[in-house]
Amino acid sequence: YGKNTIKFLRLHREGKKHFVKEVEVCTHIRLTSAQEYLEENNSLVIPTDTIKNIVLVLAQKNGIPTLEQFAIDICKHFMTTFYQVAYVKAYVQEVPWQRLHENGVPHIHSFICVPDGIRFCEAELCRNGPLLVFAGIKDLKLMKTTQSGFEGFYKNEHTTLPERSDRVLCGELFCKWSYGECRNFDFDCIWYTNKIRECILEAFSGPPDSGEYSPSYQKTVNRIQMLILSNVSQVQVIEVILNNIYFEVIDMKNLGLTNDKEVLIPVETPYGSCTCTLGRKKFLEA
Amino acid sequence: YGKNTIKFLRLHREGKKHFVKEVEVCTHIRLTSAQEYLEENNSLVIPTDTIKNIVLVLAQKNGIPTLEQFAIDICKHFMTTFYQVAYVKAYVQEVPWQRLHENGVPHIHSFICVPDGIRFCEAELCRNGPLLVFAGIKDLKLMKTTQSGFEGFYKNEHTTLPERSDRVLCGELFCKWSYGECRNFDFDCIWYTNKIRECILEAFSGPPDSGEYSPSYQKTVNRIQMLILSNVSQVQVIEVILNNIYFEVIDMKNLGLTNDKEVLIPVETPYGSCTCTLGRKKFLEA
Amino acid sequence: YGKNTIKFLRLHREGKKHFVKEVEVCTHIRLTSAQEYLEENNSLVIPTDTIKNIVLVLAQKNGIPTLEQFAIDICKHFMTTFYQVAYVKAYVQEVPWQRLHENGVPHIHSFICVPDGIRFCEAELCRNGPLLVFAGIKDLKLMKTTQSGFEGFYKNEHTTLPERSDRVLCGELFCKWSYGECRNFDFDCIWYTNKIRECILEAFSGPPDSGEYSPSYQKTVNRIQMLILSNVSQVQVIEVILNNIYFEVIDMKNLGLTNDKEVLIPVETPYGSCTCTLGRKKFLEA
Amino acid sequence: YGKNTIKFLRLHREGKKHFVKEVEVCTHIRLTSAQEYLEENNSLVIPTDTIKNIVLVLAQKNGIPTLEQFAIDICKHFMTTFYQVAYVKAYVQEVPWQRLHENGVPHIHSFICVPDGIRFCEAELCRNGPLLVFAGIKDLKLMKTTQSGFEGFYKNEHTTLPERSDRVLCGELFCKWSYGECRNFDFDCIWYTNKIRECILEAFSGPPDSGEYSPSYQKTVNRIQMLILSNVSQVQVIEVILNNIYFEVIDMKNLGLTNDKEVLIPVETPYGSCTCTLGRKKFLEA
Repeated sequence: YGKNTIKFLRLHREGKKHFVKEVEVCTHIRLTSAQEYLEENNSLVIPTDTIKNIVLVLAQKNGIPTLEQFAIDICKHFMTTFYQVAYVKAYVQEVPWQRLHENGVPHIHSFICVPDGIRFCEAELCRNGPLLVFAGIKDLKLMKTTQSGFEGFYKNEHTTLPERSDRVLCGELFCKWSYGECRNFDFDCIWYTNKIRECILEAFSGPPDSGEYSPSYQKTVNRIQMLILSNVSQVQVIEVILNNIYFEVIDMKNLGLTNDKEVLIPVETPYGSCTCTLGRKKFLEA
Repeated sequence: YGKNTIKFLRLHREGKKHFVKEVEVCTHIRLTSAQEYLEENNSLVIPTDTIKNIVLVLAQKNGIPTLEQFAIDICKHFMTTFYQVAYVKAYVQEVPWQRLHENGVPHIHSFICVPDGIRFCEAELCRNGPLLVFAGIKDLKLMKTTQSGFEGFYKNEHTTLPERSDRVLCGELFCKWSYGECRNFDFDCIWYTNKIRECILEAFSGPPDSGEYSPSYQKTVNRIQMLILSNVSQVQVIEVILNNIYFEVIDMKNLGLTNDKEVLIPVETPYGSCTCTLGRKKFLEA
Repeated sequence: YGKNTIKFLRLHREGKKHFVKEVEVCTHIRLTSAQEYLEENNSLVIPTDTIKNIVLVLAQKNGIPTLEQFAIDICKHFMTTFYQVAYVKAYVQEVPWQRLHENGVPHIHSFICVPDGIRFCEAELCRNGPLLVFAGIKDLKLMKTTQSGFEGFYKNEHTTLPERSDRVLCGELFCKWSYGECRNFDFDCIWYTNKIRECILEAFSGPPDSGEYSPSYQKTVNRIQMLILSNVSQVQVIEVILNNIYFEVIDMKNLGLTNDKEVLIPVETPYGSCTCTLGRKKFLEA
Repeated sequence: YGKNTIKFLRLHREGKKHFVKEVEVCTHIRLTSAQEYLEENNSLVIPTDTIKNIVLVLAQKNGIPTLEQFAIDICKHFMTTFYQVAYVKAYVQEVPWQRLHENGVPHIHSFICVPDGIRFCEAELCRNGPLLVFAGIKDLKLMKTTQSGFEGFYKNEHTTLPERSDRVLCGELFCKWSYGECRNFDFDCIWYTNKIRECILEAFSGPPDSGEYSPSYQKTVNRIQMLILSNVSQVQVIEVILNNIYFEVIDMKNLGLTNDKEVLIPVETPYGSCTCTLGRKKFLEA
């Protein structure tokens, strides 16, 4: 059981300059016993209200140095403080506030919400087990208007899809990777130094002056995974989900027009989805 | 990979009387090879467009006798037709259309959407593995305004929650159970004969003239599971998630009023969540 | 300015039997002056926090006899209490809780949320003006699977729609009517005695054994308005919006099948919309 | 009646460089007669399917030079082509695709969705009436963490809000302005030359090194309106809605901590709302 969607803003001031982190936290725990469930005995149950208080107290005391470190702090606190906790998981997601700029000058205390991909992380800890840390980005919506096709696929009597060598590729990306057993990483340093977000965009779109041909969603997913694994040594396993939105070139012949891929209609449902998990050495597909 | 949210309406006519099933289907498959992912070779890939066509063709040919049977039909079709499929899962969810009645008389072709709980099911099949069938109900929002409390819980310096022996219990239920390895059940017969929905409502609310005291969300979840397991012999394992919405009795003293649990405010976030999975003989808590 | 989405539950007890009304209230006011806006002088501004307190206090003191009466109470309170208020509007919407029944016996304190149409109302009052009261129902999703067509429409070179004499008619209804200047009606009595909801369903669907042919969305909207105006003498003007969801009979010829209106796909966007406002004597179309 | 949410992507190519505009269009018309509504005669009704075709044909033929010009094209087409149309309104909203950059180099055909404010416009035309054009931005979420307060407001027995001279101001902005009767403006030129978006951000946040104190939401709304009216001569009237999200500084005394505005909780409902419409010379508040 646990407490979901604990939302708060952590405000940090250095002189007149303000820094903000607004986050949503979900914390789940499992107890070593189940007597509240079986015997109406609540004596070991930590109320979800207390879980919320602990998350807020940790935020006030430690701040949020990085999302990952905050998730780790939560896990360690529960495991250290409560002997009856067998397992704890903390998920932290950030509201994408960015500092406002006026004519290139950063504003000391004004921010704008720019949701072009949401960073999140997850830490989990079993009693006597290793600390596992995951991080990721979700709700990242990308499109390339050419250099994508889908040909040579399996056909039978239920196939109506034509082969296409030039289509629009549009999708929403979810990427989640594991840092393996945690070794006191500086997680924001890894994120910024290794340009993880930039890797994803580059693997999706290819060189700026030409792009790179994508023969399938599967191959694009693979490119994203390969580039992150090769650029970020701390990443052990990476899962990518690409939910694609198909853009249909509508036939305008009966309206007396030729539509040379100029007007396309998004088909939102049904949508295809492609999920892959790629790890070092071993290979897993889910 | 797969195709999500394939929506369609299956209309069935018996003379002038019409019957409707509107469903959303998600179908996911895993192939035995990954050459499209690694080598840009799509020759074994079944396009998601073909997956959609197959679902619609099966609906046209077989109709939707029950949600579960339709999910099974999909799984079996993919496993039988495509040698390259290693695993297939079909999720089917129903739009809750109900026949309209005028002064008690059922209308032959008019329907109203009544979303007081959504039925869904899932079937999955590995090559050479057993057929697994799950069913459930979700988005079922219930409230009891008394006969609920939470006392005797674990306390420390982060505890601010008072003990309460009379609170409002309100939550959204998700129940999913397994029928184990499928043995050609008549799934709607099980649903209606065993009154599964009625079991859930009864276990939540207790006898109509008195209710039954709930000492915790956990215990209420346990009662729901126990009643279904004892009433429905075909159910093997049952998972229940109760996302509770806390109603706060607001203090009106500074407004010159005594509020004797007459005005309460829903606290939508953060919300507590309680998940349990209960099986026959063995006991699992997640 | 005002306060939106003030949500609360009003619990009323008669012995052991409980009655609930959960509502969402939006209250907007306009002041006679604009000095806070022009001159940074807040001395006449009623904080939205105070607006919220007043709504909760009125709920505690008066209860919610009917949605309409509660909206009227709010308007009258603001106009009577604050000389600086020039205009006030209160919108009240109900969460559709229904009492649970077990084998036909009503439960004394357990409820289920059944969102098959949401009742709402609106009251507004200008200083020295009449009290206006509106009521309505929204999010009412209906479907008829035959007895609907669309023929004989205007055609030109941009017309691709075929004439159809048998289609599925599905839509979401919004109905809002005016009670004119308020004369101390018993609003729930009007609602239940005149069976307003039943009128809407009947005008949409026609007789249960045969239905009634709808030659256009416009005509169906007109039938709903005419039936309410003729059955409910207190209603002065009625506005109906019908957002229709088109169900497309998919062509399965290239899949080797004949699809005799058995498998249909909902087209959610773009959707057609039809709005009409009909009053007694005078006729308005918006 | 009309057609809502016609979504499409207009792709324009200059050599290898691609330009995209994805829009949602809603088009509503009113006919000079109402015979389809009263007499089941559809002979003058333009099907919503035809409305959709016309929008797509115009997009293919003319492209979308600016959102406003495209809305004007739609209005003019309907008024010129159909003698039975008495009134037409077109609303156009843009999906916020931005060109991807890799190390500062713009990509020729890859884009990312960045929803930090959505541009929209509206054109309307009555037969024999002037063409009216509106434009705006919505879903712009801003926050300033200081330089905001609310003091000296009206108090009575229902007041519980304390006076505050340093609070977080956070809200979602909706701005819509009128260009009066259209005089063949270059609308994107007005938008970019006059830096309308930058005006809004600047009026909200004040100078980057100090900010500007906001004594109320009302005054902030007024500043935004005044700055746009003074910078953009073509704007006649401007309406601003600020839906504010209140951040509550939680009291941590009972948790043994002093919370000096470091941890704040967003209160999403109820939320305050402030709407003002400001025109040249005349002053309107709604």
